[in-house]
Amino acid sequence: MADDMNGQHHDPGRRGFASDNYAGVHAEILDALARANGGHVGSYGADPYTDAAIEVLRGHFGADAEVFFVFNGTGANVVSLQAMTKRWDAVICAESAHINVDECGAPEKIAGLKLLSVATPDGKLTPELIDVHAWGWGDQHHVQPRVVSITQSTELGTVYTPDEIAAICEHAHGLGMFVHIDGSRIGNAAAALGVPLRAFTTDVGVDIVSLGGTKNGLMYGEAVLVLNPAAVTGVEFLRKAGMQLASKMRFVGVQFELLFGTDLWLRSATHANAMARRLADAVADVPGVQITREPEVNSVYAVLPRESTARLQEQFFFYEWDRTTGEVRWMCAFDTTEQDVDDFAEAVRKEMANR
Amino acid sequence: MADDMNGQHHDPGRRGFASDNYAGVHAEILDALARANGGHVGSYGADPYTDAAIEVLRGHFGADAEVFFVFNGTGANVVSLQAMTKRWDAVICAESAHINVDECGAPEKIAGLKLLSVATPDGKLTPELIDVHAWGWGDQHHVQPRVVSITQSTELGTVYTPDEIAAICEHAHGLGMFVHIDGSRIGNAAAALGVPLRAFTTDVGVDIVSLGGTKNGLMYGEAVLVLNPAAVTGVEFLRKAGMQLASKMRFVGVQFELLFGTDLWLRSATHANAMARRLADAVADVPGVQITREPEVNSVYAVLPRESTARLQEQFFFYEWDRTTGEVRWMCAFDTTEQDVDDFAEAVRKEMANR
Amino acid sequence: MADDMNGQHHDPGRRGFASDNYAGVHAEILDALARANGGHVGSYGADPYTDAAIEVLRGHFGADAEVFFVFNGTGANVVSLQAMTKRWDAVICAESAHINVDECGAPEKIAGLKLLSVATPDGKLTPELIDVHAWGWGDQHHVQPRVVSITQSTELGTVYTPDEIAAICEHAHGLGMFVHIDGSRIGNAAAALGVPLRAFTTDVGVDIVSLGGTKNGLMYGEAVLVLNPAAVTGVEFLRKAGMQLASKMRFVGVQFELLFGTDLWLRSATHANAMARRLADAVADVPGVQITREPEVNSVYAVLPRESTARLQEQFFFYEWDRTTGEVRWMCAFDTTEQDVDDFAEAVRKEMANR
Amino acid sequence: MADDMNGQHHDPGRRGFASDNYAGVHAEILDALARANGGHVGSYGADPYTDAAIEVLRGHFGADAEVFFVFNGTGANVVSLQAMTKRWDAVICAESAHINVDECGAPEKIAGLKLLSVATPDGKLTPELIDVHAWGWGDQHHVQPRVVSITQSTELGTVYTPDEIAAICEHAHGLGMFVHIDGSRIGNAAAALGVPLRAFTTDVGVDIVSLGGTKNGLMYGEAVLVLNPAAVTGVEFLRKAGMQLASKMRFVGVQFELLFGTDLWLRSATHANAMARRLADAVADVPGVQITREPEVNSVYAVLPRESTARLQEQFFFYEWDRTTGEVRWMCAFDTTEQDVDDFAEAVRKEMANR
Repeated sequence: MADDMNGQHHDPGRRGFASDNYAGVHAEILDALARANGGHVGSYGADPYTDAAIEVLRGHFGADAEVFFVFNGTGANVVSLQAMTKRWDAVICAESAHINVDECGAPEKIAGLKLLSVATPDGKLTPELIDVHAWGWGDQHHVQPRVVSITQSTELGTVYTPDEIAAICEHAHGLGMFVHIDGSRIGNAAAALGVPLRAFTTDVGVDIVSLGGTKNGLMYGEAVLVLNPAAVTGVEFLRKAGMQLASKMRFVGVQFELLFGTDLWLRSATHANAMARRLADAVADVPGVQITREPEVNSVYAVLPRESTARLQEQFFFYEWDRTTGEVRWMCAFDTTEQDVDDFAEAVRKEMANR
Repeated sequence: MADDMNGQHHDPGRRGFASDNYAGVHAEILDALARANGGHVGSYGADPYTDAAIEVLRGHFGADAEVFFVFNGTGANVVSLQAMTKRWDAVICAESAHINVDECGAPEKIAGLKLLSVATPDGKLTPELIDVHAWGWGDQHHVQPRVVSITQSTELGTVYTPDEIAAICEHAHGLGMFVHIDGSRIGNAAAALGVPLRAFTTDVGVDIVSLGGTKNGLMYGEAVLVLNPAAVTGVEFLRKAGMQLASKMRFVGVQFELLFGTDLWLRSATHANAMARRLADAVADVPGVQITREPEVNSVYAVLPRESTARLQEQFFFYEWDRTTGEVRWMCAFDTTEQDVDDFAEAVRKEMANR
Repeated sequence: MADDMNGQHHDPGRRGFASDNYAGVHAEILDALARANGGHVGSYGADPYTDAAIEVLRGHFGADAEVFFVFNGTGANVVSLQAMTKRWDAVICAESAHINVDECGAPEKIAGLKLLSVATPDGKLTPELIDVHAWGWGDQHHVQPRVVSITQSTELGTVYTPDEIAAICEHAHGLGMFVHIDGSRIGNAAAALGVPLRAFTTDVGVDIVSLGGTKNGLMYGEAVLVLNPAAVTGVEFLRKAGMQLASKMRFVGVQFELLFGTDLWLRSATHANAMARRLADAVADVPGVQITREPEVNSVYAVLPRESTARLQEQFFFYEWDRTTGEVRWMCAFDTTEQDVDDFAEAVRKEMANR
Repeated sequence: MADDMNGQHHDPGRRGFASDNYAGVHAEILDALARANGGHVGSYGADPYTDAAIEVLRGHFGADAEVFFVFNGTGANVVSLQAMTKRWDAVICAESAHINVDECGAPEKIAGLKLLSVATPDGKLTPELIDVHAWGWGDQHHVQPRVVSITQSTELGTVYTPDEIAAICEHAHGLGMFVHIDGSRIGNAAAALGVPLRAFTTDVGVDIVSLGGTKNGLMYGEAVLVLNPAAVTGVEFLRKAGMQLASKMRFVGVQFELLFGTDLWLRSATHANAMARRLADAVADVPGVQITREPEVNSVYAVLPRESTARLQEQFFFYEWDRTTGEVRWMCAFDTTEQDVDDFAEAVRKEMANR
């Protein structure tokens, strides 16, 4: 193969606004991976890095937390939901939920779960919206709602307050249901709220969390984080049968140990959020660009003319978010720089001036 | 957390004979991971490292090969088998097959596939053994055998010759079935046979391969390698719905690019095989130790008294393989040293002398 | 056991308006069951009654139709949908569809299918409503819409015209999708439209039908009716693995032979429809009762005060239909008499006068 | 359609030895169906015939028994097994078990269950044979054995004694497993043993039974019979989602009420068993015919030359049982007559004399 740029096939100085998955790995994480290397340790989680990571997470989420590392967010979600459901149960979620839209039907295919989705104005469920589907228990013709799944921060870049999640938990528990958080961007939410991770999870009654790391600078790896062990059963079997058990688990463990054992998770999330704020501010007054929602975390949603979108996409990675309205999403990552933002804002300004 | 040994939680100089999954990552692979880092590239496989790795694998397996990287071996197996089967099909395999024994029922749970397993003397299927289950097509009461799955090298450390696989392919294809190789140790098999990888795959008619990397020095990542594109459909959807699609795919791609784009795969596999040979030779004459099968790849199977096993396990990692006979498995890895082997052989010799 | 009423545990003279499933079996069908009895014939469908029924249905739906008898409507629906889908496909349907609401999640649990449901004003899909979900083909993150499922007549008692179904078929086929009809009340629809069964199925391009019999006077039994054999594969295996293959199939066959081989299906459906019309007319002017939708088939939907509903339910079987509005459903069956209707209308009138 | 033989498409005087599923419906059962007809009663089991049948079965199996009627034996088995298992559990059974061989992989496909099958000499499991697979609990790589499933009488026509089943229950329970009986021919077993149904079920600790009726003279219908309610959960949801919930349930209920509320089950089973005994005796001394196993219930297994089998099959329905040995199975039903047996035995004698 023909290498270019010092053995690399890509330009490490090029960044865009497509996704926090387009970013690579934080330098401190790469160092941690090397530290865990060498010699032989137990496989499938029986290693000291996995143990250390679990302890670190218990520091954040409480001593009762149980932690099961998996490969990716879909895996974390599907294992989590199965762990709390019987074969005939169902999951209430927002229409915009990642599990409902972007996982190729994994919850239905892998777990046979029916998702009871409800339209929301902002990606956030409420007790009232939950009640659209929270009925039918005991009726053999009806799937049995058992889990409420929310995303924090949401797919629309909004953030639940601790009180909002507390209200959902109280409502769900009162109806005999459990609460799951899809936390693929949980760090961004905590940074935005300025509270500890447990303030809107453990402390308000959340039962289980899909704890994200990849979008916040890890190479790979997420965790099924059980906050209410009484709510789950068989997680380790669901993980293995769900093809989510890493053999060389130490390399997942060490990433989580570093990310959450230092302030790296918070530094990175805070920075990504700030870059989105900077971008929104920079284009707020550009004629023809409409910011559709105030950025609460690391994404900016905007409407601009489709031909302008197309021309800007020739220079910068980013995606159309809503195929019906042409709304676009600009996502910042841990490695987005102020210069990146300013360059992009300038390109937007030029495009809108010249069209 | 309390670090010891220069920030490490483990002794990088300690190695055992438990599993090639106990080993870490080859130093050249770690370097490659760093090379792929930095900047933004497309996620979910739309990146130049994934492209390069696919080209490298086509160099080995032929220009028609299609490659889909996944997280682990269970994922590679389950996606591969689904890609060739309808909902009512079944898979013929050896009783000792990893898919039958060690994957927590993933093929049944995830894909609804019935495994039709048959006892073998050495972990290897033959046309005659396949025929035990190769019947019932068109009978609505009977699952429809559609795939023959073999492991190369097998779970018992044996290796199919190219001719043996050719015979299986010819037989299976004649009956309208496809052939899958679970190739989690495919490099060890090629090294043992002294032939190119395609000699017992592409060239003899194999339809699909679960191509292993992790056991040969990668951090994570395997591949669904489609050699007969006409045999499969929907692999990308099965991968995503199967929770096996990595977001930051570049880091899987670059590992495969390095492993198979250089001779690293062959160097590592050849070395691991040689270490097993060295170990078998070193203990062959030890009274009380019976080598149960000549090592063909990187594992040694032996029977020794259970109390000796227990005492040796206090010093070295290794596993009992057969709960009924007490047979043990000693597995060598890419990083097993001659000194490791000699030290272990010496310990065995002492144990058997002193018991 | 203590029998009453001449060996019966129920009053054969008591009928209500709860469901066409509350009715028993048409006398001519009971006679047919006896006619098929005696002696030995092939099981699992290899019998002359099943053959005769298939020929009868080909007379209605065309010589190319393939027929697979099953036990019930859920079975017919789930087998039909699976027969046209790959493991990663999805089904577009109305929110009110029986498959979405009343089958305890069977399509998701049994087939792993995601249902993409859309709100409708009247239970009927249109090309525009289909387009809400008809997108994302080729995107590995998205389930692949493959089937449009409509109910004829719908769960809301509405009927698609042949032209409306033709438009749906043309639209769906143009997008590479198939069309399924849940026809548990297909006879009522044909009677309402005054057209042959094929006029809104075979002749307008429908690919597969869940052909109902039970709600129209059979004891048990429905059929998967394949109108486009190129759209399906493996129906017999899906039926058996789906636990829907009757051993003594002759008794299903003979019921269908009689129902559709005579005008019984049309007589019964026409009668049930007329009884609903009679009921709607009889209560149309009762103060406090609002007919919410003109009856097109054998059901009447009405809103009345909840306490009146409760008192009427003490005298007559019927169900609340909409838990949020208190709307009720009054369903007529093949055996509903004019007297039944008049008695019930009188009871409604009295209740509303006296409350 | 062209009717012959007084409106019938078959000769009600013709019977063979293919299967007890080739027989029709006992005349008393047909009468009972008519008795349940007429008027409206609750659907889906909320009717007095279903209630009465449940009481009748509690009379046989104990007051704690819970009864869930389903359509067929596959349905009874798959619902039963799911009711006792988590998503990651497995079922130990004989290789010859109907669930393993003749249900098109329904347990795997519908429930994701792995069957751990073991070869048996006579179709019967023992504690020792169970132990081949009864291990691996707590090991995340291994399916978790949770149910032992036995068939009474077995697929090979053998019968477990109450003591044998007691020993299996004690062994299974001691290991934390449950015991399921596939009782599609449970009446034949009780008749052969000369004991009440509860003697080898409730009284010896069996947890759940697939209670058969169809093979003993019903038109359709089987029951999931829960003897240990603590072992199961969600049966009604599994039944509905499993497409096994009959809408007009009264017609299943009344059949069971009659079959088990009178001595019809025992009369029919005893008779069928006696006919098998008569047949075995009649051909025992025919040269060239080898009875391979003493008939214990209503089937006779024999080896004879394949060309003789073929000629006899031109006159009488029966099946080859073992494709490798040419062993045939001759099955008697509730309606098999002494004349049928004598005629068939005579045909066998003639065939063997003339070949």
